[in-house]
Amino acid sequence: MAIEEKKNTYVDPRITLVGAGPGDPDLISVKGVKALKSADVVIYDALVDESLLKYAPDSAAKVFVGNPSGEENFSQDMVNQLMVDYALNFGHVVRLKGGDLFVFGRGYEELDFATSYSIPTFVVPGISSAISVPGLQGIPVTHKGVSESLWVLTATDADGNISSELGEAARSKATVVILLGFQYLQKIVHIFKEAGKEQLPAAIIQNGSMKNERVAIGKVSDISSIASEQGIDNTGPVLLVFGTAVSLHTRALGSGQWLTINKVFA
Amino acid sequence: MAIEEKKNTYVDPRITLVGAGPGDPDLISVKGVKALKSADVVIYDALVDESLLKYAPDSAAKVFVGNPSGEENFSQDMVNQLMVDYALNFGHVVRLKGGDLFVFGRGYEELDFATSYSIPTFVVPGISSAISVPGLQGIPVTHKGVSESLWVLTATDADGNISSELGEAARSKATVVILLGFQYLQKIVHIFKEAGKEQLPAAIIQNGSMKNERVAIGKVSDISSIASEQGIDNTGPVLLVFGTAVSLHTRALGSGQWLTINKVFA
Repeated sequence: MAIEEKKNTYVDPRITLVGAGPGDPDLISVKGVKALKSADVVIYDALVDESLLKYAPDSAAKVFVGNPSGEENFSQDMVNQLMVDYALNFGHVVRLKGGDLFVFGRGYEELDFATSYSIPTFVVPGISSAISVPGLQGIPVTHKGVSESLWVLTATDADGNISSELGEAARSKATVVILLGFQYLQKIVHIFKEAGKEQLPAAIIQNGSMKNERVAIGKVSDISSIASEQGIDNTGPVLLVFGTAVSLHTRALGSGQWLTINKVFA
Repeated sequence: MAIEEKKNTYVDPRITLVGAGPGDPDLISVKGVKALKSADVVIYDALVDESLLKYAPDSAAKVFVGNPSGEENFSQDMVNQLMVDYALNFGHVVRLKGGDLFVFGRGYEELDFATSYSIPTFVVPGISSAISVPGLQGIPVTHKGVSESLWVLTATDADGNISSELGEAARSKATVVILLGFQYLQKIVHIFKEAGKEQLPAAIIQNGSMKNERVAIGKVSDISSIASEQGIDNTGPVLLVFGTAVSLHTRALGSGQWLTINKVFA
């Protein structure tokens, strides 16, 4: 039948960029799950929990592209091109990325590339680790009278140098969250010390929201050694938090209730 | 039967604080839905889409508490007390809040109150409007070489005065997102002008992610009048974005593809 043939060969290219959240697979949105259910191809990152692939049809291709910012694996240009090629040839491509799309996630590069091919492109935001990972540890990034703003930065600028904004952030009253910064911890601690913030509460969280989460709580002056004691290293995502709001974590820990906070909800 | 009787009378108090996301009900997390499915009581805000209540059992009580920061409706103290009383009497209370819990969401006040009663309390982060609402409009809060950080603020401090941090934020290179600021727009625009940022791209988004979303895109110098033209007012959540990254929205709009971005994914 002519209609039947057309049904089998017609491709309706579209791309949905989905933020998968900080790591716990149940922190994806319902909208993200709906996108996966209608995927013809899923392109996913190293930071995405593979159990999320179960939402996609068995017939959908699942393509692992590693960590685009790593030296191994696929480059960002290759991911962009793959995404477009799959959409043109197979239909609905879901590009599943760790965290949110636009918080140091290079989501706009993919969006810009896709739209340059006039492929209809949809955005499904994710839960950003910058806010949720401290929150899961009982650290509110803002709290009335304690911290009235949140400043999210990465350690290095586009040229790979230590960000010139870190000094300003260290001098500000904001809760400062730094992504991709653990390998520069000594330099970052130095910047906070130069700003006179030796006693500012600080936290380092590795693999936030996941079963292998590790947490160090201290002050600018001792956070490096506490992180070492806790066995925190640079495998998996690591997030740094500086600000008075971190002290709320410690206070709550005293009540003995915090141990339950981060238990996976079943 | 003895066991049957015990099952009907035993109360296991616990509280789950759930961030419902920016407004679109499909932007709640899978974990948030799971929490709702086991709720005995749901306490929800004015910013929460009531269609989310369908996930809770029919037998669960659904309690509307309005907007805790508004003058009418329930005060924050009343919400805190209700939450604890319901947990002690009925079991699992899900406290469903718009946005994320800890970005000017007063989530920590609820968490602190609940844990002071030694009630096991869980945190399920939500998608923050501060990041997702610009993202849904194709405005990446960070983008390599354009904006290397994000500063999220509210317009007023704990005493109700214009935040002293706004001046610093206006002078910084960060993408600046201001929540709860629309009624202070003239003052905020003045602060950016004083910082020499007349030409800085700016956006105002009302009811982000929802069907009645309204968007104004301009510069510091003309954003007020463009917001008026677009009919933006202070009903529902309004978010202000200042930064070079806003210009990416305009560029993408030129490709004609952006109209599809924000369509609700079906």
